[in-house]
Amino acid sequence: MVLELDQYADGKAARLWSLYIGDQAQRTKNYKQFLKGILNSYNCETVLDVACGTGIDSVMLIEEGFSVTSCDFSDKMLKSAWSTRWNRRKEPAFDNWDIYEANWLTLTSDLGTERQYDAVICLGNSFAHLPDLTGNQDSHRLALKNFADMVKPGGILLIDHRNYDSILDKGRAPTRNIYYNSQYVSDIKTSVVYQNGSPVKIILDYVMSDPSTTEQKYEDNDRRKKSLFSTNPSDNEFTLSYYPHRLSSFRALLEEAFDHRATITTLGDFQPLEQAQDPAFYIHVVRKLP
Amino acid sequence: MVLELDQYADGKAARLWSLYIGDQAQRTKNYKQFLKGILNSYNCETVLDVACGTGIDSVMLIEEGFSVTSCDFSDKMLKSAWSTRWNRRKEPAFDNWDIYEANWLTLTSDLGTERQYDAVICLGNSFAHLPDLTGNQDSHRLALKNFADMVKPGGILLIDHRNYDSILDKGRAPTRNIYYNSQYVSDIKTSVVYQNGSPVKIILDYVMSDPSTTEQKYEDNDRRKKSLFSTNPSDNEFTLSYYPHRLSSFRALLEEAFDHRATITTLGDFQPLEQAQDPAFYIHVVRKLP
Amino acid sequence: MVLELDQYADGKAARLWSLYIGDQAQRTKNYKQFLKGILNSYNCETVLDVACGTGIDSVMLIEEGFSVTSCDFSDKMLKSAWSTRWNRRKEPAFDNWDIYEANWLTLTSDLGTERQYDAVICLGNSFAHLPDLTGNQDSHRLALKNFADMVKPGGILLIDHRNYDSILDKGRAPTRNIYYNSQYVSDIKTSVVYQNGSPVKIILDYVMSDPSTTEQKYEDNDRRKKSLFSTNPSDNEFTLSYYPHRLSSFRALLEEAFDHRATITTLGDFQPLEQAQDPAFYIHVVRKLP
Amino acid sequence: MVLELDQYADGKAARLWSLYIGDQAQRTKNYKQFLKGILNSYNCETVLDVACGTGIDSVMLIEEGFSVTSCDFSDKMLKSAWSTRWNRRKEPAFDNWDIYEANWLTLTSDLGTERQYDAVICLGNSFAHLPDLTGNQDSHRLALKNFADMVKPGGILLIDHRNYDSILDKGRAPTRNIYYNSQYVSDIKTSVVYQNGSPVKIILDYVMSDPSTTEQKYEDNDRRKKSLFSTNPSDNEFTLSYYPHRLSSFRALLEEAFDHRATITTLGDFQPLEQAQDPAFYIHVVRKLP
Repeated sequence: MVLELDQYADGKAARLWSLYIGDQAQRTKNYKQFLKGILNSYNCETVLDVACGTGIDSVMLIEEGFSVTSCDFSDKMLKSAWSTRWNRRKEPAFDNWDIYEANWLTLTSDLGTERQYDAVICLGNSFAHLPDLTGNQDSHRLALKNFADMVKPGGILLIDHRNYDSILDKGRAPTRNIYYNSQYVSDIKTSVVYQNGSPVKIILDYVMSDPSTTEQKYEDNDRRKKSLFSTNPSDNEFTLSYYPHRLSSFRALLEEAFDHRATITTLGDFQPLEQAQDPAFYIHVVRKLP
Repeated sequence: MVLELDQYADGKAARLWSLYIGDQAQRTKNYKQFLKGILNSYNCETVLDVACGTGIDSVMLIEEGFSVTSCDFSDKMLKSAWSTRWNRRKEPAFDNWDIYEANWLTLTSDLGTERQYDAVICLGNSFAHLPDLTGNQDSHRLALKNFADMVKPGGILLIDHRNYDSILDKGRAPTRNIYYNSQYVSDIKTSVVYQNGSPVKIILDYVMSDPSTTEQKYEDNDRRKKSLFSTNPSDNEFTLSYYPHRLSSFRALLEEAFDHRATITTLGDFQPLEQAQDPAFYIHVVRKLP
Repeated sequence: MVLELDQYADGKAARLWSLYIGDQAQRTKNYKQFLKGILNSYNCETVLDVACGTGIDSVMLIEEGFSVTSCDFSDKMLKSAWSTRWNRRKEPAFDNWDIYEANWLTLTSDLGTERQYDAVICLGNSFAHLPDLTGNQDSHRLALKNFADMVKPGGILLIDHRNYDSILDKGRAPTRNIYYNSQYVSDIKTSVVYQNGSPVKIILDYVMSDPSTTEQKYEDNDRRKKSLFSTNPSDNEFTLSYYPHRLSSFRALLEEAFDHRATITTLGDFQPLEQAQDPAFYIHVVRKLP
Repeated sequence: MVLELDQYADGKAARLWSLYIGDQAQRTKNYKQFLKGILNSYNCETVLDVACGTGIDSVMLIEEGFSVTSCDFSDKMLKSAWSTRWNRRKEPAFDNWDIYEANWLTLTSDLGTERQYDAVICLGNSFAHLPDLTGNQDSHRLALKNFADMVKPGGILLIDHRNYDSILDKGRAPTRNIYYNSQYVSDIKTSVVYQNGSPVKIILDYVMSDPSTTEQKYEDNDRRKKSLFSTNPSDNEFTLSYYPHRLSSFRALLEEAFDHRATITTLGDFQPLEQAQDPAFYIHVVRKLP
């Protein structure tokens, strides 16, 4: 028996998250161009971001002109999103931004199904945070079914996960990330738990480096950033745990969630799968049949 | 980060242990003949059992005429040993039985080193219960050094561990056991934790079957045995966790503990290694040079 | 040693709070008239509500035309305040409402002292939630000093507490409350902890009655209210703990916080003290000398 | 709600207990003479000590020639008793000493009722450790009934408790003790918990002084005693919690336990009640009618 350890929801991750994902301005243009390109190519205007966290993706999409609704399970994360929305409320696009606290397992009743969306997005390796509560992936099935129900006929679900096949093969997660430019992640300790031979959990202990002790040059006003780093080493660590979805079985779950009435295109690090060599992330574009 | 879970010391294991190891009378003759044979072949008379638990091995050796000193870390386990000793105190061999509560990491100061023994035994897969507290096996080294210090020159250390190489390969622990004839173990769930690709912990959840619901025939006076089984299913489970020693690295640790002044013979399920096919247990006979 | 138990901050209280304080519309006119009257009589326009909770008092004051800044330590409570502000953002008074997450012990650095207020209010028995962390009331002194520093010269601090002298004498807290018209509080179990003869903590276990099983008549749309009541009885209970401030010693703390440069008027249940017979609450109006 | 905190059973108390009760040799002669005198005056030969702890009273009675059976709920405490018995097993009186792990709430089934005793003793303020599990003293009633059932017709129950009436009046427990000569108790912090006006728990935090830093002179071989004191201050503290039995209500419980077929004589600090001024302990001698 291995206990669930995940600090996503308890505020510790929230505090360190802004460091982990790095400066918003440094966000890879690749990612933004990719996301915008996909949404445009499917003529999506309305987007439901079911894993908005502090709101970083949602804000980017609002700025690009999409009509965004956002939700997350963690109210500690949502505090940042609510704050951003309040500060920018005079901009009509932000005035129209709906943000909800919602649970994937009850998503359709939390949000109602009167409104469906051109695109539902669940990115940033968020889905793998959902544990397999019963040992038979029923929680995974229920969440994906709820996502599917929020997609308009002809619309898409955009969902990603790390390349767990590769992590399981190598026994280690890479420290770099296609989404984030974090200069502060100094180490990731990878623990993998197998039960009766099957991988059921990956636990990552992130160690953040203290910028004040590294040779990076910072200008004057990063005082607040530094204050995030305690002298107590354990305060620079946080733990996240994931279900290690394998590519083939995850695609099967997606098929099932859409009652096999969808087409699935899988990309590797934003590239067609055949061009991606051992990608860090898999991104699935699931188009619901009209 | 994975929490340590081990119910050896908390009394729950003690309660179920007598069921797990099965009826003392049914103990395999193989094991007894083997142990007696080894001790005799090295002319051992005095034996220190550093993992005596409830005393089952120590009692067998006392009955066979050895002069036995016993110790264990768990006072919950030792209660049974103390009780057996008290009940048989009129037999001179039991009147002379010394039993101590002791910690392997401080064994030489707990017991003193004035007295060394012809044989130190650490059997029943006991050593694998000692966790790797620091991540570099320092606790394993210290305990083995303390064992070595309690062995007379010319004497032996007898220590075993499950065949973890095989468990790691297969992802599952076998339910049967060379030492014990337990008819009650209905399932073992095997969890293996890898950190950065190296196995660091095996967690076994034992599920005991309830003899009252199985088709085994029991005579009248096993009422007390049955009462051990609660109707609450979780009361029939217990969890033990182990460090998965690999054969080659464990032999290297043994060499180091004796300052390379010892000869090591490794057996597989009581057989010479070359005759043992995928053995369940490895048993090391380490002879300290005279 | 008695553990701190207080569910104010963990969300459970937040969920039941709206039931405990009763329907906002039923709020006693007495309280509103009193608060407005006091603030007007001291010519207060700007108000800092340091214990805004879900925002109920702050909203009332905004609606009455005061310029309000609000803060609280519990982000679970603040979620309601943020939500109310967002929903009413088109009203200029709400568009100007500042709401902060802040800690009384660091209030002046959390909010800055550039801006002082005509009135600082800390009502609803909020102050008594602050535990005596060191055993010598240093935390109480620091918080009151911070409140005093936020008051303009000539402005007032309005702070209240239950009549703990009376509760200590009788051993029980009354279930009714001058502020709130809760019809749902069915019982309060009062525990008082004395250390070496001095009262140091009062623990109140609130039991909420389930309106669906009481004979009160409700109209159609209270479905959501009912759903707050679980069939599990413990879900209808919550625990709050307080420091039992005695009238005389609390007045002395107030004197000290203002460096004895203030006048203190104490009311009992909104009446002059001499007219109040065994009041439920004491309310202190502390005027900082200009 | 106030949590139960009592370190009697977890081994911490056991470790410090031998210091708290002081040197066995210094035990007050008063106590020994009193206990012996009472037992002799009622012609008691067989004694059941239901709260033997480490065995200090039982050993004293065995040495005085009584036939003693002992039991306790805490196996951590019993370890000392078992060890003493083993070390002195060549003395016939100790060879005959029965020691059981038993629970007062199931005492008659744990020990069987085939054998009754001339005297059942429950001394050293032990009974007050039993919490009121249900809020109506049912656990107290059951334990006392079980004690009564173990007493022979014509035999006695000897049971004591601190003078809680006095502690409740004064708000503090005295540090000195009629039973023990402990020089090491430097402070006792007394917490009293009242629920709805009735005292339901007294929590005593004992602080032990470190003999190495006090001016008491100790001879050479108390090295081991000193090592019990850690440099970590909290290691010199332990917490015990009691139910504060009042004299009148406790006598009523005793009457009920014996079905009103007993005579109760209550002493104050070993003196007739009328001669004892504000005694520290009440001791009840309950004679079961023949």
